[in-house]
Amino acid sequence: MTHKWPYITPGLPDEMFIRGNVPMTKEEVRALTIAKARLAHGQTVWDIGAGTGSLSVEAAIQVADSKVYAIERLAEGIDLIKQNRDNFSLTNLEIIHGKAPEALNGLPDPDRVFIGGSGGQLKDILELLSDRLKPGGRIIINAVTLETPGRAVDTLIRLNYKPDISQIFVARALSISNMHLMQGLNPVYIITAEKGGDNIAG
Amino acid sequence: MTHKWPYITPGLPDEMFIRGNVPMTKEEVRALTIAKARLAHGQTVWDIGAGTGSLSVEAAIQVADSKVYAIERLAEGIDLIKQNRDNFSLTNLEIIHGKAPEALNGLPDPDRVFIGGSGGQLKDILELLSDRLKPGGRIIINAVTLETPGRAVDTLIRLNYKPDISQIFVARALSISNMHLMQGLNPVYIITAEKGGDNIAG
Amino acid sequence: MTHKWPYITPGLPDEMFIRGNVPMTKEEVRALTIAKARLAHGQTVWDIGAGTGSLSVEAAIQVADSKVYAIERLAEGIDLIKQNRDNFSLTNLEIIHGKAPEALNGLPDPDRVFIGGSGGQLKDILELLSDRLKPGGRIIINAVTLETPGRAVDTLIRLNYKPDISQIFVARALSISNMHLMQGLNPVYIITAEKGGDNIAG
Amino acid sequence: MTHKWPYITPGLPDEMFIRGNVPMTKEEVRALTIAKARLAHGQTVWDIGAGTGSLSVEAAIQVADSKVYAIERLAEGIDLIKQNRDNFSLTNLEIIHGKAPEALNGLPDPDRVFIGGSGGQLKDILELLSDRLKPGGRIIINAVTLETPGRAVDTLIRLNYKPDISQIFVARALSISNMHLMQGLNPVYIITAEKGGDNIAG
Repeated sequence: MTHKWPYITPGLPDEMFIRGNVPMTKEEVRALTIAKARLAHGQTVWDIGAGTGSLSVEAAIQVADSKVYAIERLAEGIDLIKQNRDNFSLTNLEIIHGKAPEALNGLPDPDRVFIGGSGGQLKDILELLSDRLKPGGRIIINAVTLETPGRAVDTLIRLNYKPDISQIFVARALSISNMHLMQGLNPVYIITAEKGGDNIAG
Repeated sequence: MTHKWPYITPGLPDEMFIRGNVPMTKEEVRALTIAKARLAHGQTVWDIGAGTGSLSVEAAIQVADSKVYAIERLAEGIDLIKQNRDNFSLTNLEIIHGKAPEALNGLPDPDRVFIGGSGGQLKDILELLSDRLKPGGRIIINAVTLETPGRAVDTLIRLNYKPDISQIFVARALSISNMHLMQGLNPVYIITAEKGGDNIAG
Repeated sequence: MTHKWPYITPGLPDEMFIRGNVPMTKEEVRALTIAKARLAHGQTVWDIGAGTGSLSVEAAIQVADSKVYAIERLAEGIDLIKQNRDNFSLTNLEIIHGKAPEALNGLPDPDRVFIGGSGGQLKDILELLSDRLKPGGRIIINAVTLETPGRAVDTLIRLNYKPDISQIFVARALSISNMHLMQGLNPVYIITAEKGGDNIAG
Repeated sequence: MTHKWPYITPGLPDEMFIRGNVPMTKEEVRALTIAKARLAHGQTVWDIGAGTGSLSVEAAIQVADSKVYAIERLAEGIDLIKQNRDNFSLTNLEIIHGKAPEALNGLPDPDRVFIGGSGGQLKDILELLSDRLKPGGRIIINAVTLETPGRAVDTLIRLNYKPDISQIFVARALSISNMHLMQGLNPVYIITAEKGGDNIAG
């Protein structure tokens, strides 16, 4: 391992990432999103709407030798993903500057797909994944808006998935004088769908 | 790997564990607790107040060859931990029937300590850990009562730790007819303390 | 005042209502729903999908002399609403056994409308309200499913409302031995829409 | 009614208050705190650590003719409370510049006491209230730190109260382009204690 994270578990602290002004998936939600993905060595991973690339970096650390593709349409994001990738000396993280679903055309079929941002194309992306996702593959959607969870789940059910859905509300302590103020983060829905067959989770 | 979990990431579904009537740390909180522990191969892990052993099993899967010690004072818990260990064919999970801190005496010093239940002895356990925990070692407390977070943090600060504190509120979808009812789980505080030196998290 | 509640503020404890097996809006969410309604004497109130009638009872206590109409399609609910109304000696709570929107035809136009359950007719109900709701009138929707918030807000925006949306996650202490276990209730979205003009809230 | 709020229910929108840089109890928590107080005409109300006075204003609107005392030790707060009081043309809101418990000496015994900030004197304040609070009186504590809930409840139990405890986590929608981002507010514990006898809540 050549990267900076000396542990085998996910959940890097937010401070290890360069963020700029791009919203970043916070440590707790990131760790849980990686967990819901059920990663294994050899998996091909797509991270659609990668933002700062924090989730891509976590995934690339986990799968180690197989490829993680970070897809992002904004130049500001692309720049941050590069910095974060280089900062962790990751050689298995490919960065794609483009908009999904078009930008996904040339990529190898994925085992795992993170969707953090869809640029309004969630339905089209999920329909494309219905074809491209490998059998047993998993899609993990992080939704922070009121509208996305319902739309994502409607589409997933129409495409014959049985989504697993958790909403996560995190508060973190901020040390002030000799007390700890609990500060609320934005709640996030984590929606997971597995392609075909029986889920190991029963 | 001889165990049943074919993935490298934590976060086994609740359905994979035998639970009986013992409260169990739920998947989302368990995955996050493992993440906060920052596990690595070779670490010695204690799980104090192991309950069903779900956290011990997750830790034992992660550290693979080094030992995880599940300490539990109730016979009902001991029985469940054995069933869950055997069910996952884990050979690195030792089960200790006894009450902390006394039951910890004969064990090798830990790198990581989970505290899920303390039987009212949290202060004594944390004071013992102040001595026994290896440098750079981490303590991860899961607290579900109103009283525990304040007491745990007061003691940790007195013992010169700088605790990291998150509260997690999870809701899960239950499919009913053609909708999903969101069901709230009990909120959990995850309190993490690292022994000595600068935290990698900065 | 002839009713049992000697206070002027809303938020009756759950124990004051007869519940049977019908889901009931919990005290905290009920108090907040009444607050979002901004009640005043003389208002005509509809409570669509009244369930146990707990919200109807709270509203009827507040508006005192004007009428609250509890609309419910299930006989079990109708029976509970009657018991709760009689228990509070309320003379301004009318009970309508029927399904919205049809059941709303004969009622006087409302100033305030609570929607707790819509029997799948939310869109039709909101469209009818677009016509029937008095100027300055308010609609308050309680949503407990993943699907309802997005659909409700889409429809409200199409009908030219600017909805105010809060999600509420409540945990309550259960006293066990000498500690308090915090128990999570189901999260609820409270969606409020006001008809026309500028909102007093700015 | 001479004040600006034309409704009988609590829960004024945040925008109606002048805030400066002082933290303010948010609408949802404020409405719920007023509800937990169970206000009635004629009650004497203390608001200890009144901050911006938003809770005092809500209480003064409710009790109408009896007195609400806003106690605040910071000059910045005193100035804001005055502005908010005048803005609502309230004549029953007295402002006390001083530190509890000392500042409470000259005031008439209260029926209801809000504690939003205690300046580290929570134990002393609760002990004084044990004497000064009228029979059937209620104390409502808003706690935003990790430490306060445990300490408050320990003291209340020692003083023979049976506290009622809710934790409230609120997220609010922020309209961005054509979606709604859900933004998390800080979680707040609302701890309520009633003096003597059986609680109406059973």
